[in-house]
Amino acid sequence: MARTASLSGFPEWLPEERLVEQHVLDTLRRTFELHGFSSIETRAVETVGQLLRKGEIDKEVYGLSRLQDDEGEAATDGGKGKHDPHALALHFDLTVPFARYVVENAGYLAFPFRRYQIQKVWRGERPQEGRAREFTQADIDVVGDGELPFRYDVEIALVIAEALGALPIPDFRLRINNRKLAEGFYRGIGLDDTAGVLRSIDKLEKIGPAKVAELLKTELGATDDQAQAALKLAGIRTEDTSFVGQVRSLGVSNELLEEGLDELEQVIEAAVKRAPGKVIADLSIARGLDYYTGTVVETVLVGHEQLGSICSGGRYDALATKGNRKFPGVGLSIGVTRLVSRILSQDLAKASRSVPTAVLVALNADDTWGEAQDVATQLRSRGIATEVAAKAEKFGKQIKFADRRGIPFVWFTDDEGKHQVKDIRSGVQVDADPATWTPSDEDLHVQVTGTSPE
Amino acid sequence: MARTASLSGFPEWLPEERLVEQHVLDTLRRTFELHGFSSIETRAVETVGQLLRKGEIDKEVYGLSRLQDDEGEAATDGGKGKHDPHALALHFDLTVPFARYVVENAGYLAFPFRRYQIQKVWRGERPQEGRAREFTQADIDVVGDGELPFRYDVEIALVIAEALGALPIPDFRLRINNRKLAEGFYRGIGLDDTAGVLRSIDKLEKIGPAKVAELLKTELGATDDQAQAALKLAGIRTEDTSFVGQVRSLGVSNELLEEGLDELEQVIEAAVKRAPGKVIADLSIARGLDYYTGTVVETVLVGHEQLGSICSGGRYDALATKGNRKFPGVGLSIGVTRLVSRILSQDLAKASRSVPTAVLVALNADDTWGEAQDVATQLRSRGIATEVAAKAEKFGKQIKFADRRGIPFVWFTDDEGKHQVKDIRSGVQVDADPATWTPSDEDLHVQVTGTSPE
Repeated sequence: MARTASLSGFPEWLPEERLVEQHVLDTLRRTFELHGFSSIETRAVETVGQLLRKGEIDKEVYGLSRLQDDEGEAATDGGKGKHDPHALALHFDLTVPFARYVVENAGYLAFPFRRYQIQKVWRGERPQEGRAREFTQADIDVVGDGELPFRYDVEIALVIAEALGALPIPDFRLRINNRKLAEGFYRGIGLDDTAGVLRSIDKLEKIGPAKVAELLKTELGATDDQAQAALKLAGIRTEDTSFVGQVRSLGVSNELLEEGLDELEQVIEAAVKRAPGKVIADLSIARGLDYYTGTVVETVLVGHEQLGSICSGGRYDALATKGNRKFPGVGLSIGVTRLVSRILSQDLAKASRSVPTAVLVALNADDTWGEAQDVATQLRSRGIATEVAAKAEKFGKQIKFADRRGIPFVWFTDDEGKHQVKDIRSGVQVDADPATWTPSDEDLHVQVTGTSPE
Repeated sequence: MARTASLSGFPEWLPEERLVEQHVLDTLRRTFELHGFSSIETRAVETVGQLLRKGEIDKEVYGLSRLQDDEGEAATDGGKGKHDPHALALHFDLTVPFARYVVENAGYLAFPFRRYQIQKVWRGERPQEGRAREFTQADIDVVGDGELPFRYDVEIALVIAEALGALPIPDFRLRINNRKLAEGFYRGIGLDDTAGVLRSIDKLEKIGPAKVAELLKTELGATDDQAQAALKLAGIRTEDTSFVGQVRSLGVSNELLEEGLDELEQVIEAAVKRAPGKVIADLSIARGLDYYTGTVVETVLVGHEQLGSICSGGRYDALATKGNRKFPGVGLSIGVTRLVSRILSQDLAKASRSVPTAVLVALNADDTWGEAQDVATQLRSRGIATEVAAKAEKFGKQIKFADRRGIPFVWFTDDEGKHQVKDIRSGVQVDADPATWTPSDEDLHVQVTGTSPE
């Protein structure tokens, strides 16, 4: 795994690494579908106008231009300026494209609409560990037409806990907060620029409480008491619903705060019961993006906290609108590439072999390729992945070939049509019937298993 | 299906359409893996230099530039001119990126390396039926180190015939030719600009034989006899190996021609036996791209010929090189989006329902959501996709909700804890135990079945 990407920030996996990634993707898909989420994909490109719709883009976006443009000019720099709203750019997440998809297809969807979406996204940021320029996200969202019961916030968190729990990764924690709780609290103590406070609180882990207090005072005109109260709130972190009492003991009263407390309590209460140990109330969680309006979530891998959040998201009540019609939603996004990179770089999981193939059918003469294909067809009809040797080399060479490719079994047919199969790991060779022989369940398909002690 | 893409050339599917696409992708993946092909993905971007490596690009390529570039200029137009070899662009196929991947990772791969690759590619061409700007390709290739036995050309054709045969599509024909055969023949009749002849022959279906003859004479200086001989060769089309006799009867003798005849005969001979009716020798097939050196393949859907080739490719002996080391390969590429678009626009296949969900667990009171989740967990543990209602509305409304979403079963639990399940299509409601009840195989998972008569 000492290879580096030939283009910085654009990781590519070797076949045996890709098997680990496929296992992660398959596991997520299975879990999402078991919970009734439909798959969709959106195009890789959006118009710049769509991406800029919510104001600033705090991600580095890749614009597109046709190399063979008739004018001989890049489309982003010719007639269409680079901030021309009709110019095309690669999407930087799956939430903004999903909101557009919902609005465009509202007449064809049944609400609440549950979807998962697993696709690549692109951000032109400086690559570093855990941050690539091209990476895969796996999102689930539920979107309502007009309204969306809060219960879906609870459900989304539980589905994600189940999905992450099925992956070959170390233990994790969903850290959950609620924007209403935070904003209500800030208003209750007299800080009305709640977005500004959230932006400062968001820097807590990076710059520490003293500097955040300084920011609140200098940039938002907070008093020392206000700054301390905001920091006290952000310091609350509980594994159960006791955060409610801790917030109340700060003596702040506000209607929105009460609403947020009630919502977060519902999430934590359900999680304590249905995903014990996986979810904590963490009142420091802010999330930079401004479209969240309630529940907000970040997720850390225990022992890998410096990797950053591996799954983030929350409630957004106004991301998608069509005239007066609103489509509130709640969703979470798993950083698949970030997870898989870590699994691979630290050998947290391994594939049982490097190819899908379970059996190599050897040739004892060059003109028996057809008969060997017949054997292979019989094995494949029972789901056994099988290759046929291309040349009738010495058996030793054919076995070596299987060994080099990581294929566990070699099939031999002698001139009298007698069949034998050899497990080249143990060397054991037995008579076998191509119509009935089958390997053990462990050998039938590639197995990907975690190596982390848990 | 009357929707049009909101961005021309960038199709997006509704959830029930995506189920058809997923079925196609899953079927291809299963077939490829059964034949021992490993999955890889390459990054979406290549350097322009890499894409231009083989000379001209006859595809429209999308270049990339960072919108937030420090210089305030698009990277493809600032310091990096749009033909700067280090500028980035989206890949337009999967063969060129695969060749680069093989060269870069040669030390980590076991040869012959068999891989499948299913990814999106982008071409900025004018969109039309069967031609999108963003579309999915599914490729299989086998690449050798130094040499690659011809047998893989035969195998690749058979695997593709099996893969296409497993899809819910109309009947199809692989039309196969061999560049050696054609080039040897042209040399044998004294036409040495074989690439030029191939380019003209490639236009046969578009402009007809008279105009091709004209082209051969005016552009390549062919005599009338030479033009007629080249056209005679291109007119040969047989379902068996009788093309060999037909070519020989043209009385041309050339070593390369003999080699090509022998290779094509091997492919057709195996196909007649192992994929009867699916493969024809068609000596008009040329393929525009210049990297093919032997077998060339195009594939038509019977009755949908005007859609263009749904699967193309062939043998390339020199696409990937590393110093003196050559990596010859053979591969075929299925146009998944072209196929799926046709399936959807002509209702050639249908999903049995529009969501993965098999069961909706109804609520008889708002505070029974936890118990309903327990039922759902039991069902999911046996692989039954299950959702829980979010609100305890009247049962009629909850049933209507399931109906609108396309969910076949609704689960009821009364106050005494008695469970019943209702098939809302038939109206039949029976007692059921959440620990053992299971739907029929047809209802357990979404089924996608073809509607075309075959």
